[in-house]
Amino acid sequence: MKYFVAPLARLIDEFNKLPGIGKKSAQRLAFYVLSKDDAYVKNFSDALLDVKQKVRFCEHCFNITDKQVCDICSDPKRNPNIICVVEDPKDVIAMESIGEFKGVYHVLHGVISPLNEIGPDDIKIKELVDKAAKGNIEEIILATNINVEGETTAMYIAKLLSGFCDNITRLANGLPVGSDIEYADEGTLLNAFEGRRRVNAN
Amino acid sequence: MKYFVAPLARLIDEFNKLPGIGKKSAQRLAFYVLSKDDAYVKNFSDALLDVKQKVRFCEHCFNITDKQVCDICSDPKRNPNIICVVEDPKDVIAMESIGEFKGVYHVLHGVISPLNEIGPDDIKIKELVDKAAKGNIEEIILATNINVEGETTAMYIAKLLSGFCDNITRLANGLPVGSDIEYADEGTLLNAFEGRRRVNAN
Repeated sequence: MKYFVAPLARLIDEFNKLPGIGKKSAQRLAFYVLSKDDAYVKNFSDALLDVKQKVRFCEHCFNITDKQVCDICSDPKRNPNIICVVEDPKDVIAMESIGEFKGVYHVLHGVISPLNEIGPDDIKIKELVDKAAKGNIEEIILATNINVEGETTAMYIAKLLSGFCDNITRLANGLPVGSDIEYADEGTLLNAFEGRRRVNAN
Repeated sequence: MKYFVAPLARLIDEFNKLPGIGKKSAQRLAFYVLSKDDAYVKNFSDALLDVKQKVRFCEHCFNITDKQVCDICSDPKRNPNIICVVEDPKDVIAMESIGEFKGVYHVLHGVISPLNEIGPDDIKIKELVDKAAKGNIEEIILATNINVEGETTAMYIAKLLSGFCDNITRLANGLPVGSDIEYADEGTLLNAFEGRRRVNAN
């Protein structure tokens, strides 16, 4: 499709590069930007630059932050000896949304995935072992995803850390809230069955 | 949801302002930007600023352009006496995609819409009348959308211009390519029926 206007074609192209934004959506977004005032566009443009310039990794947990040590690691109310291990900074956001966890995180920045040529040395496992080796760890929660790579990574880490911590846990597997047993997949149902808990009727 | 990192939260917010981009998509896009290198982000940011700074309206047809007169109006191979009247610059792109039209455009930048308090003076109708009044117009094609506002605007313009041009046309109404008659809406089917054409079987 010919747009006649080079700057517009370029912006459509940039939007089109984003994941999940097709050609038509990119066009719609570019025309939207075109319809907004200068201040809006300046703001958007600055936000893009800012995120690259200011966001870095926390030197303790490798979560994203705009400080040297992130707000969670530097919060005195959080227990640094309970570590929740996650794959990705987005998982920290998800875990924090439940508002229950009072420990700190360790972000691996990936999972072991031989198919994608990602081995244990390509993600932040060594840093986790170093942390655990310093002692005093009360619990390590392995909150990697419930798929082959997530499970493999969790098992690998559990083995490595077993000498340093005797309370290594994994998030419960089972039926999600609102699920119909009729439509549950076999893997989920098997996990739910194996992990069944006694009902206390008193 | 709490993101802990102000620049990231700000970028998510900016993406979230775009039409059709929800909170979750905005988060995904912001993390994608974060994962790209500096050059990519600089490029995206520049493209945003550029589109506002360089894109303006053609002084003949009011289509968007980065020049004083757009490429279509300044093309000597196009007939300036055949004018296709459209609502929006996006309609120019659509019309050009068929590669058939060899005249020029006139972009109204809206339609008459009493409900939205948009009257004839709020869109580029006067400029179209001025153009037509200069004479020599061979055809005016009213390519506004096929809805109440588009039809009203087309009828209003047709009345205004009837003294200046005796060849005012409207795009054909009927069944779109690939349509099932069974599922066609009544309005479309009525238009298709009323506009039926003789089949030449020779």
